[in-house]
Parts: sequence; C-alpha cells; structure tokens
Amino acid sequence: SNGALAKIRRMLNGGMAPADVAHLLESSPQKDRVVLWNLIESELDGEVLQYLGEEVRAEIVGRMTQGELLNAVAAFETDDLVDLLQELPERVSEQVLQAMDFQDRERIEAVLSYSEDTAGGLMNTDTITVRPDVTLDVAFRFLRRHPTLPDILDNLLVVNRRDEFIGILPLNILLTSDSGLLVRDVMRTETEVLRPDVSSDEVARRFQRMDLVSAPVVSDNNKLLGRITIDDVVDVIKEQAEHALLQLQGLDEDVDLFAPVLRTARRRGVWLGINLLTAFIASAVIGLFEATLQQVVALAVLMPIVASMGGIAGTQSLTIVIRAMALGQITPARGRSLVIKEISVGLLNGIFWSCAVALVAYLWFGDATLGAIIGISIVVNLATAALAGTTLPGLLKRIGVDPALAGGVLLTTITDVVGFFTFLGLAALAF
Amino acid sequence: SNGALAKIRRMLNGGMAPADVAHLLESSPQKDRVVLWNLIESELDGEVLQYLGEEVRAEIVGRMTQGELLNAVAAFETDDLVDLLQELPERVSEQVLQAMDFQDRERIEAVLSYSEDTAGGLMNTDTITVRPDVTLDVAFRFLRRHPTLPDILDNLLVVNRRDEFIGILPLNILLTSDSGLLVRDVMRTETEVLRPDVSSDEVARRFQRMDLVSAPVVSDNNKLLGRITIDDVVDVIKEQAEHALLQLQGLDEDVDLFAPVLRTARRRGVWLGINLLTAFIASAVIGLFEATLQQVVALAVLMPIVASMGGIAGTQSLTIVIRAMALGQITPARGRSLVIKEISVGLLNGIFWSCAVALVAYLWFGDATLGAIIGISIVVNLATAALAGTTLPGLLKRIGVDPALAGGVLLTTITDVVGFFTFLGLAALAF
Repeated sequence: SNGALAKIRRMLNGGMAPADVAHLLESSPQKDRVVLWNLIESELDGEVLQYLGEEVRAEIVGRMTQGELLNAVAAFETDDLVDLLQELPERVSEQVLQAMDFQDRERIEAVLSYSEDTAGGLMNTDTITVRPDVTLDVAFRFLRRHPTLPDILDNLLVVNRRDEFIGILPLNILLTSDSGLLVRDVMRTETEVLRPDVSSDEVARRFQRMDLVSAPVVSDNNKLLGRITIDDVVDVIKEQAEHALLQLQGLDEDVDLFAPVLRTARRRGVWLGINLLTAFIASAVIGLFEATLQQVVALAVLMPIVASMGGIAGTQSLTIVIRAMALGQITPARGRSLVIKEISVGLLNGIFWSCAVALVAYLWFGDATLGAIIGISIVVNLATAALAGTTLPGLLKRIGVDPALAGGVLLTTITDVVGFFTFLGLAALAF
Repeated sequence: SNGALAKIRRMLNGGMAPADVAHLLESSPQKDRVVLWNLIESELDGEVLQYLGEEVRAEIVGRMTQGELLNAVAAFETDDLVDLLQELPERVSEQVLQAMDFQDRERIEAVLSYSEDTAGGLMNTDTITVRPDVTLDVAFRFLRRHPTLPDILDNLLVVNRRDEFIGILPLNILLTSDSGLLVRDVMRTETEVLRPDVSSDEVARRFQRMDLVSAPVVSDNNKLLGRITIDDVVDVIKEQAEHALLQLQGLDEDVDLFAPVLRTARRRGVWLGINLLTAFIASAVIGLFEATLQQVVALAVLMPIVASMGGIAGTQSLTIVIRAMALGQITPARGRSLVIKEISVGLLNGIFWSCAVALVAYLWFGDATLGAIIGISIVVNLATAALAGTTLPGLLKRIGVDPALAGGVLLTTITDVVGFFTFLGLAALAF
C-alpha cells in the first residue's frame, strides 16, 4: 500500500542511521534489496554505500549510472574511496578518478599504489600536522582555524619543514599543558610508527597490543604519508579473527548471504568436489580389504567410528595451531613443545576412549579380538591426528599454501586413511 | 649464562612494551613463563597483567602474594580491575577491595554489580563531565585543571546538576568553535547512548555500525554511569568473531595454548565423548543392514562417501547461518528465503556430484544399480544437509541451546544417519 511505502521511505531517509540502512540491505534477499535501494534518496547513497560489504556493494554499484556513482562518492574519505575504486572495473574507476580535481586525484593515486591489505592501503591522508618549534598556544589557534576536524582525532602529528615525521602531540597533553611551552617540549617521540608496506594483519596486532586509536604511516625516508584510524582497523581485526576459521570450511568472510543460487552452488561445489576426492581415497583404502569385510561384516559397522574420532580430534589440534599462527604465538622452538603436548593429549584421550569403545564393541558383537583391534586403531589414529594437526599448518605454510584452506581437507584424508588402514589391516591379520 | 640473563632482564624491563612482554609470556611454555615472570620488576607487573589472556593471568596471579597483587593492580582502570576481580577467587578479590579507599571501592562495586558481558560490565567510570550552561572557554579551563586526562578522550559528557545525561561535546567541536558560545549551543544530543544491561555483543555491533571511539552508559532514569571506550570493544569484537566458529569445533577462545596436558585432555575428551556417541548412532544404523552388506561388500566401500558429502555441505550451511545470526542478519521472514536458497544449492550440487559419483561407482564395480543407488542417496543427503544446516540453529536457539556448540554434532549425526540409511536401505530393496 502507499501508506506503508511512504513510511518505509521515511525510515530509510532519515529515520534510520545509514549504517543500519546498509545492514538492512545486506540482510534482505536480492529482490527486496533493489526495491529498498530505489527508495533511498540519492543524497544518502554515498553514506549507505560506505557501510556495505564488498559483494553487496558491487551488486548495487553495478546498477548505478556514472553520474549517480560520482555523486555518491563525492564525500568519501580517502581510504573508503580507495577501497571502492579497487572493487570497481578499471574503466569505471578511471572515470571516477578523471572527474576529481587534481589534488584529490593525486592523494587517491598515492594510496592506490599500495596493496589493499597493507598499512598504505588502509591509511587516510587527513592528517593534521604541526611544527615542533611553535608554542602550544599557536598550535591551538592553528586548530581553531580548521572549519572541521576529522571525526577521530587523538593526536596532532609533528613534522619538520621537509615533512619528515618527528613525533606526536596527543590532544589531551595539548589540553592540559601550559600553553607557553613549545610543541617539542611536550610531544612524544617514542611512538608506534607504521611503514606503508606493513601487512594489515600486523597493523591490527599493533593497534590491539598498544590500545591505539590512530597511528601515523611514515615512509622509509621518514616522510609522513598519512594515518590509520581504529574504525578501519576494527574491520581488519574482525576479518582476521574470522578468516582462518571460515577458510577451514571452504568459506569466505566477505560473501553475500543472499547471493544467487547458481553462484553459491558453483563456489560450494568446488569445495565438495575436493572433499569428494578425499572420500574416494578413503574408499580405495577400504576396497583393499573387501575380502576381510565380507568375512567379518561387523568391521563395516564399526569402521566409521575409528575414522570419525581421528577427524574430530585432529581438526581440534589443527584449528588451535592455525589460530595461534594467526595470532603470532608460534615460533619453531615452541612449536616442538606444542607438538609434544598435543600428541600427549591425543594419546591420553586415545587410551581412555579406546577402552570404552573396545568394551562396547565386545558387548555388541561378543568378540574380544574385535574389541582389541578397534581399541588399538583408535589410539594409533588419535596420535596420528595430533601429529598431523600440529605439523601440517607449518609444512603447508613453508610451501606457500594457506594452511586454513588446505589443512582441514588434508587432515581428514590422513585420519581417514590411517583409521581405515589400521583397523581393517589389523583385522585382516587377525581373522 | 649470566650475560644472556642480564640481557633478557633488560629487555623485559623497558626494552619491550608491556603488551609485548604479555604476548611473549602467552607464547611460552609454562616452565619458561615462570622464569620470565620472575625476571620482570614488580613495578611493571600491573601493566603486563592487563594484557594477559584470562587463563594465563589466573595462573600467574595464583603465584603472587597478596601484597604483590595489591601493588600490581593499584594503577588499573576500573574496567580492567573489575575484569581481574571477577576472575579471582572470592576471598582474594574481597581482600583487594578492602585494601582500596572508600570512593574507589564504591566505584568498583557499582561496575561489579553488572554482568561481565553487558555494557555495565565493560564500562569505565573515568568520565569527564561538563554542565550545559557554561561557556566553551570555561570548559577549556576546567579541562586544563586536570593533571592528566584519560588516554582515549573524544567527547566530554554533558550532564545537569542531577547528574542526568544531556548530550556529548566532541573535543573537535570544542576546539574549533567560538569560545564564547555555551556548551548547550554546540553539544550533540542525538547520540548513541547505551543502557547498562545491553549485551556486549550489541555494544560491539553499535560501535562498528557507528564508527564510535567511546559511548556513554546511562541508566534507565537517565543518570550517567560511565563510558565504554573502543579499546575494550575491540576485544569483544574479536571474541565475537571467533566464538561461534571455535565453538563449532568444541573449542573455547580464551584458552592457554600451553595449558597442562591433563587439563587439555579432560576438556577435549568430553567433546570426543559426545562425538563418539553420534558415531555409535551411525554404526547402529549400519548394523541394521548387516545382511545386505555381507551380500554386497561394495556397499561398505562406498558408504563413507555419502555420509561425508552430507557432513561437509551441511556444515557449510550451518556455519553461514550461525555467523549471520551472530551478525544479526537473520529475521524469521528472511530465514524462509534462506532455507529455500540453501536447499536449492544443495539440490543443484547434489545432482551434479551424484552423477559423477554414480559414474565412478559404475566403472569401479561394474554395477549400474549400485551407481543409481549412490547417486540418489547423495541428492537426498545434500538436500537434508541444507535443510538441517539452515534450520537447526534457529530451533536450538529457541530451546535455549547455543547453536554453535551443539549444532555441528547434531548436524553430522543427522547427515550420517540419513546418508547411511538411504544408501543401505535402497540397496536392501534393490539387491
């Protein structure tokens, strides 16, 4: 109805914060999304775009005319604009750049020259700088002359006349110090400085360790390039925390929940295909023992237990190691003691649970040999799982493969093969 | 050697930032950790403690005398101290509280009355307040009288004489406005205000959506209670992102990498036990078809493929839904369209990969019926997996169970049972 539509239109254009509108768009199926987007007034387009995830944003930008797009990005901050430009087809991003004035374009192109996942790609060029040899009173009056200041402003950056970075002047020191003092008397020189080629993961780590709100980005020859603020680092921290864990299941963190069925099926299908390969390898191992299986059909009933216990325990070790690597907690020396710990845990749990399983198998099939065989296999498989889970990530990383992406598949292949081979192999010897 | 020891001692006491010392302790096996901790001078104990994770910190605090502990926490901020007190045994935390002066104790006890995972538990009481009817010049002089200001200070909080919250005065507005204006003329009243009982997850969401650096916490009757700063919210965001994904594998985010073997084995053992139960359920299903398996041993070779494809696909759907729930992206109406989407993806991939598997099975065992049976079973199991993966989280949440903790186990139980039952059941009918 028209009344309801008018109400939604009012909510989208002022009733809700732009971040909430973006969240609503992301949580809506694609059909509704188009309708909602068309209800949003064009002055708000830019603000909403800034809060959208990569995939949903690409979909919406794809539907905008060049004029609408230029209008929408006019008020973007450097880093947000750079993010968007990197996602656009080259032809479109070139048009956006050409429409900007020379100074803005130069600033954008400086940031564009750094990779998206480095400090250079994360930085903004909205620094407020001050000279070391002026008084705080002068610094104050200089600040007052700015019609607006950046939203997040905790430090002024102190540079000399060659634009070389010297230190920071925290606002709360500026506010509480005698205004007759010189900037150089109260500035802090022992401060966190980021090179533009530092990875965004490392940037996130330093912000967390030092509880930073912003940090300057400085070139190798000490020129001030820009600064990074916590709001952009929060996104990195979130992605970093999710990335490895989602990768383990063949998933990506930046995906549209309501992406079309075909696109989703293709993405997931590849992952299923890879896992299917490993399942066939396991089947081939079982196939080696067809004769034994025919003789003792109880083996077929019990064999999934051995494989599944190994998979579960190994994935736990693997996840813990991959996460510790992402947090930078693992060095080669400590890796050894971690392997020993994980194998000990695997053996302890292996011995405990294999007794339980052996007992159940004995009671179920009335066969003590069968119980002994499944017990031994579980101990062997849990120890293997711990060894593989702790060492695979390091080995994969050394040969340049993402441990989170390949680790889980490789691990379950190993635990399946070792589990089935030990269990059925011992049975072939015994029966 | 003594020289090396002296060098390490120098590094720990001034060479490295306290956050880095904490990181080093967390990345060290427990034996080394004790040695390192004893090398740290007692004046630095407090700073290092603030940066340690929960489990490692409990271990170290457990070794300190009461005097050492009181000394170390003297300079803690309210929220950090509250965090620590909540981890300590009641007897010890009582002692720490008794040793404080009355005003400090009252502030701490106010925060302690809120649960750790609410806005109240996250807040600090270090607010800087100002009255609406003073000039900016007076506000300035008032700030200057503070010997130190909080590290993170983006807004002054405007309150009336009854301590009721009225609005915020951003420092960058204070700095750029005419100093003759009144606070009420330039303050912002449309601002994000948090109630103390709002969950920390919701706090994290609002900080991210609004790019906040700090936000006031205000009681139901509008009294200003404290404020939350981004450095503490970053920890929540990180835990939030990791929590659901680690829970899916029975892991916890706050665990010491080098926890003793026995403790780790006990924790993981419980998880293995639960998964063992589901493996036995799958075995019982296989056991129903012993006669058929004896007749056609190829079934035993191929059956793990059906179960494993279902488990992989279902876990993907489950992970996506649990993550979308954590991000607040799912409503009942949208849930339906998501279920339909996921089932369509499952059916598409089921049809595609079942053809491949059917062909391989036919070529391997030379039996077309076997190929048809495994093909049908895979389609059925992938559709089931999608349905279970998308609906389980909502159902579990409705009955008050954490979907991340129970979802994965339940899901693989379902895909195992359906996979084995369909495949072996069809075979029993056919052969």
